[in-house]
Amino acid sequence: MCSATTASTHDRDQLCINTIRTLSMDAVQKANSGHPGTPMALAPVGYTLWSKYLRYHPEHPDWPNRDRFVLSVGHASMLLYSLLHLSGVVEIDEHGQASGNPAVSLEDIRQFRQMDSKTPGHPEYRMTTGVETTTGPLGQGCANSVGMAMAGSWLGQRFNRDGAALFDYNVYVLCGDGDMMEGVTAEAASMAGHLKLSNLCWIYDNNTISIEGHTDLAFSEDVGERFRGYGWNVIHVTDANDTHALGQAIEAFQAHDDAPTLIIVDSIIGYGAPNKKNTAAAHGEPLGADEIRLAKQAYGWPEDADFLVPDDARTYLRDQMVERNQPAYEQWQATLQQLDATLADELNRMRAGQMPDGWMDVMPDFEANAKGVATRESGGKALNAFASKIPWLIGGSADLAPSTKTKLTFEGAGSFSAQNPSGRNLHFGIREHAMGAIANGMALCYLRSFTATFLVFSDYMKPPIRLASIMELPVIFVFTHDSIGVGEDGPTHQPIEQLAQLRATPGVLTLRPGDANEAVQAWKIALEQTDRPSCIVLSRQPMPTLDRTRYASAEGVARGAYVVADAENGQPQIILMGTGSEVGLCVEAYEQLKANGIAARVVSMPCWELFEEQDEAYKQSVLPDAVIGRVAVEQAGPLGWERYTGRTGAMVVMSSFGASAPIGKLQAKYGFTVDNIVKLATEQAQATGRS
Amino acid sequence: MCSATTASTHDRDQLCINTIRTLSMDAVQKANSGHPGTPMALAPVGYTLWSKYLRYHPEHPDWPNRDRFVLSVGHASMLLYSLLHLSGVVEIDEHGQASGNPAVSLEDIRQFRQMDSKTPGHPEYRMTTGVETTTGPLGQGCANSVGMAMAGSWLGQRFNRDGAALFDYNVYVLCGDGDMMEGVTAEAASMAGHLKLSNLCWIYDNNTISIEGHTDLAFSEDVGERFRGYGWNVIHVTDANDTHALGQAIEAFQAHDDAPTLIIVDSIIGYGAPNKKNTAAAHGEPLGADEIRLAKQAYGWPEDADFLVPDDARTYLRDQMVERNQPAYEQWQATLQQLDATLADELNRMRAGQMPDGWMDVMPDFEANAKGVATRESGGKALNAFASKIPWLIGGSADLAPSTKTKLTFEGAGSFSAQNPSGRNLHFGIREHAMGAIANGMALCYLRSFTATFLVFSDYMKPPIRLASIMELPVIFVFTHDSIGVGEDGPTHQPIEQLAQLRATPGVLTLRPGDANEAVQAWKIALEQTDRPSCIVLSRQPMPTLDRTRYASAEGVARGAYVVADAENGQPQIILMGTGSEVGLCVEAYEQLKANGIAARVVSMPCWELFEEQDEAYKQSVLPDAVIGRVAVEQAGPLGWERYTGRTGAMVVMSSFGASAPIGKLQAKYGFTVDNIVKLATEQAQATGRS
Repeated sequence: MCSATTASTHDRDQLCINTIRTLSMDAVQKANSGHPGTPMALAPVGYTLWSKYLRYHPEHPDWPNRDRFVLSVGHASMLLYSLLHLSGVVEIDEHGQASGNPAVSLEDIRQFRQMDSKTPGHPEYRMTTGVETTTGPLGQGCANSVGMAMAGSWLGQRFNRDGAALFDYNVYVLCGDGDMMEGVTAEAASMAGHLKLSNLCWIYDNNTISIEGHTDLAFSEDVGERFRGYGWNVIHVTDANDTHALGQAIEAFQAHDDAPTLIIVDSIIGYGAPNKKNTAAAHGEPLGADEIRLAKQAYGWPEDADFLVPDDARTYLRDQMVERNQPAYEQWQATLQQLDATLADELNRMRAGQMPDGWMDVMPDFEANAKGVATRESGGKALNAFASKIPWLIGGSADLAPSTKTKLTFEGAGSFSAQNPSGRNLHFGIREHAMGAIANGMALCYLRSFTATFLVFSDYMKPPIRLASIMELPVIFVFTHDSIGVGEDGPTHQPIEQLAQLRATPGVLTLRPGDANEAVQAWKIALEQTDRPSCIVLSRQPMPTLDRTRYASAEGVARGAYVVADAENGQPQIILMGTGSEVGLCVEAYEQLKANGIAARVVSMPCWELFEEQDEAYKQSVLPDAVIGRVAVEQAGPLGWERYTGRTGAMVVMSSFGASAPIGKLQAKYGFTVDNIVKLATEQAQATGRS
Repeated sequence: MCSATTASTHDRDQLCINTIRTLSMDAVQKANSGHPGTPMALAPVGYTLWSKYLRYHPEHPDWPNRDRFVLSVGHASMLLYSLLHLSGVVEIDEHGQASGNPAVSLEDIRQFRQMDSKTPGHPEYRMTTGVETTTGPLGQGCANSVGMAMAGSWLGQRFNRDGAALFDYNVYVLCGDGDMMEGVTAEAASMAGHLKLSNLCWIYDNNTISIEGHTDLAFSEDVGERFRGYGWNVIHVTDANDTHALGQAIEAFQAHDDAPTLIIVDSIIGYGAPNKKNTAAAHGEPLGADEIRLAKQAYGWPEDADFLVPDDARTYLRDQMVERNQPAYEQWQATLQQLDATLADELNRMRAGQMPDGWMDVMPDFEANAKGVATRESGGKALNAFASKIPWLIGGSADLAPSTKTKLTFEGAGSFSAQNPSGRNLHFGIREHAMGAIANGMALCYLRSFTATFLVFSDYMKPPIRLASIMELPVIFVFTHDSIGVGEDGPTHQPIEQLAQLRATPGVLTLRPGDANEAVQAWKIALEQTDRPSCIVLSRQPMPTLDRTRYASAEGVARGAYVVADAENGQPQIILMGTGSEVGLCVEAYEQLKANGIAARVVSMPCWELFEEQDEAYKQSVLPDAVIGRVAVEQAGPLGWERYTGRTGAMVVMSSFGASAPIGKLQAKYGFTVDNIVKLATEQAQATGRS
């Protein structure tokens, strides 16, 4: 059966597999930290996939139609770095150009887990070419992959013409027991099954070992049956070293066209390490020099060679990938040339993170209105206006669209489904966590994605919000029902600390607009971002639309905070600061104070992060140090407001959870009334007048 | 077949069911907000369970061995309030005494969703007798119920003797599509299956309607197959109005002894409302007067009667429950009398939220040590010491016990499992979200529960932390690996904003101890709490154990912040404030400043919330207004620190995410060095000296 050639092929395959294993062991050992066991176990899986199946051209890692490879078990980063090294992937710099360097050099591998290296402990998007998403927090990569697969379907509908496919990539994920246990994975898997994402393949490393010991301690479900319940195609490979069976499984995935595929692969963590394999000791720490030596013996490897890439392995993986993918890449380029100019321009803009021309022409303008509208309403109108001009702005809510007002209602928006992957309204179901992670996955594949739910449920999706910021993705997270203004639903549904949570997260813009026109500005600003996520925080209840002929323009939102109404002559005695629904309240109080002869200023502060980015002169012009009489008004917890009130200012904020009652009663109970603000402002004016 | 008697019984059953439905419709209509559709659909389910099966004595709603009824679909609160009203449950006041009032009167139902009523929009624990847990955020009730069932098993092992059962209660849950979609439910269900919790029964309201429309929009999995994959016993009832089939299903659950049971009940949301049934319109808003009239017609109800409880329904449910449960209740009391004195005392203390005598006698004391230990180590020792004295302190980690050091290692602690429900080490698997919610469920059943994971993963469990606070449960959440001190694992694993998140949450104690003895104090304080959760935030890396003969006693932790080291003569020029691993850094800087002739004070601030509760005199004694030269040092984001630095103080904090590198490099990069603190402090001293 075995000719000399195939034996040689087999030997070289095995040589590459063992190179991945030994590089991983050596890198972890040198760094004196990391996770060797999973790369050792999954080297045959990664190698088989990359060498024989993955549509990925090492010289063109930015090929839009490449298959996406997601290492959801991000702690096994050395597996990915080894694959990137052996496949000779070239580095693409931040301007999208080939730098001339490899994505991961052998020296980079030696620098594993060191400061400013391209080989951090967990794979980080934007830091290493070939890393498709930042993984580490378990479950996130799995959920990202669902967004990538949805994006693939959507892009295919948008750009494929006359049987020529610009987008038909597959998404492959390596995941583990931790991913299988995390709830976000369960949500994402249910959604993937519902959407019949046949371009999605998860390879589950069933190694039965977790940090506390055998998975039997905590995990004994029948994963296959569970996934069949989700509507997945389930395949079992009983030995991770059986590359033939792995190949057959991947081919079965590729042939399956109406469901996502789960390949369950039984593996031995730390394979080859005689004393530590199949134990938790192989998971998260270096094997130690002695055990490495023994493992290398087991692989038939030179015991004392560190970071060895044998000559026969040096370009073998790369050559296979180039040879296999070159024709497809050329075909793709030819197809791209055929694309009509409008769509070609669209694709270029999407890839560059640019907007269509004229996208701002449709900005709604709201007239002054004392009763006004809820910002969820005005925000929904702004979203619809902008979305009508930005074809690749797509998103949806966690089963709350009628409440969040985020449904795209214009002609042709449609609902995304297995039958209609060109739809732009996404129905996430009651799966907030996966919603956030799926939106991240879509943003990684050129789409401008948005999500929507109630602000209190931002708690359920904090992990992907954080990752959107770490990855510098301009995902837009809409959060409505933003305060005790929720009313009767009570404390479980009334956000208190959520604004502080979002503001505390580095790199996130948190925008809480103060009326309809500020809501429009908030959407504009969020859409202008290219490298950070935005949270747009909107009210359930109506608030007055300010008369902008009388008060300052809402364009001040762009500077984060701005003077809405000011003392008529000279310096104010007191500054009222508010966000969202409290801006209108401050304006009412301001008018009352004016009638009482107290010179106040109202500062709307919809976005602290943008305000902090202004120069000192602007900040002083809005909040002059000399005016220490200050009242902050926000239907949320106090944390952080001292930055602006100083230690002597007053606050009208929530110092407890809310209660179930009609909104008017709640606002009175907690002091969100004009009278209370006037009273506190008057006290502040008197106190500072004395000082 | 049908005798007059059974016909009459059937009629009265139906009368009660329709009373529940009409009370629910009327209450929502009067409140002009709420969710009528699910109570209308599930009235037969709730009624059948309560009247025929639930072990619940209306006169003794605090019976420890009562079955727990969890309305995970908390928005359907009127179903529960109606059941509590019709079953005549008596109110137990905050001192555990019967108040003489009903738990829910008809007037209370009229006050549905009004300020300070006993009938808030979602069921709230401590607010209404008979509400076993606060539900509203979907999935939480399901996950709580797993903790309740685990607690039941544990309590049975602890207190049942010689075949006499003090604890053998069942836990019943009504849940819906939203629960089924939420990831936290998936995690909890997997764990319940693993633990073979045969005392747990979820009744899933399969109404196929969600807010955006038919569940087909987003949810088409085979829930039964999925749960069989988890190892559950699955039963299908095809008509929610078929009370006979419901009864059979509940009996099948009761007979099943090696798995939890899921009863899938097909129902029609808004059953009886001719125009709105089976539509999203019946879900979350009043039906309207006309539709209510038509529904009442359909039920054969007087159209114009509001809040009608027919005479034949007034005590019928109550009488059945009393009659059925009285013998079991009396038997239970007799069994309790037989309990040995030690265990009886233990049970009394558990119910009253008291500790065993002498639980503090074992407090570890750590000697001064310049190299010191990580607070995860010292915290683990404190936990083990206290746990050895508190038999009902039980908990565990999300597959990180070797890293969080929270394993109980003393003789007899054991691991909780299906085979050993007396174990005190819980293995939550990689399921942080369910871990938090399960710990809440255990706390609702007399146990002192704790959890553990890395601080960054507090993001995954924020919803149950919030609910622990809303419910005033003294759950202890341990979070280790609390800063960039995590090192090589990089930004995904390095918490930045998490401290601010926890501090922002009302009612939560966030404790970040500054050395080994502060860690012991933190555990002591957390264990002393009776009505609020604590988060104990601990380091991965070692920190010096301060010499408490030279510096102030660690008992100062109890006041939240305290002076550790002070200027030797008179007022300091500068105050250094830190928490956790930065306290030692501040002390080193203090010594350096002293050598440089600058009079500094070091304030350790392990718990802001406790400090804010001190009187003004104490606060001034620690942080005198007169000393405006201040430097705050914390390896976390800045949000909130201005409260203590004022607007002129300096901060050494993290203004970005971290990076993957060895800890020493990270600390240097981000300025967490003695030199940097000394430099900033010196600048502050000079600036304030000039002013």
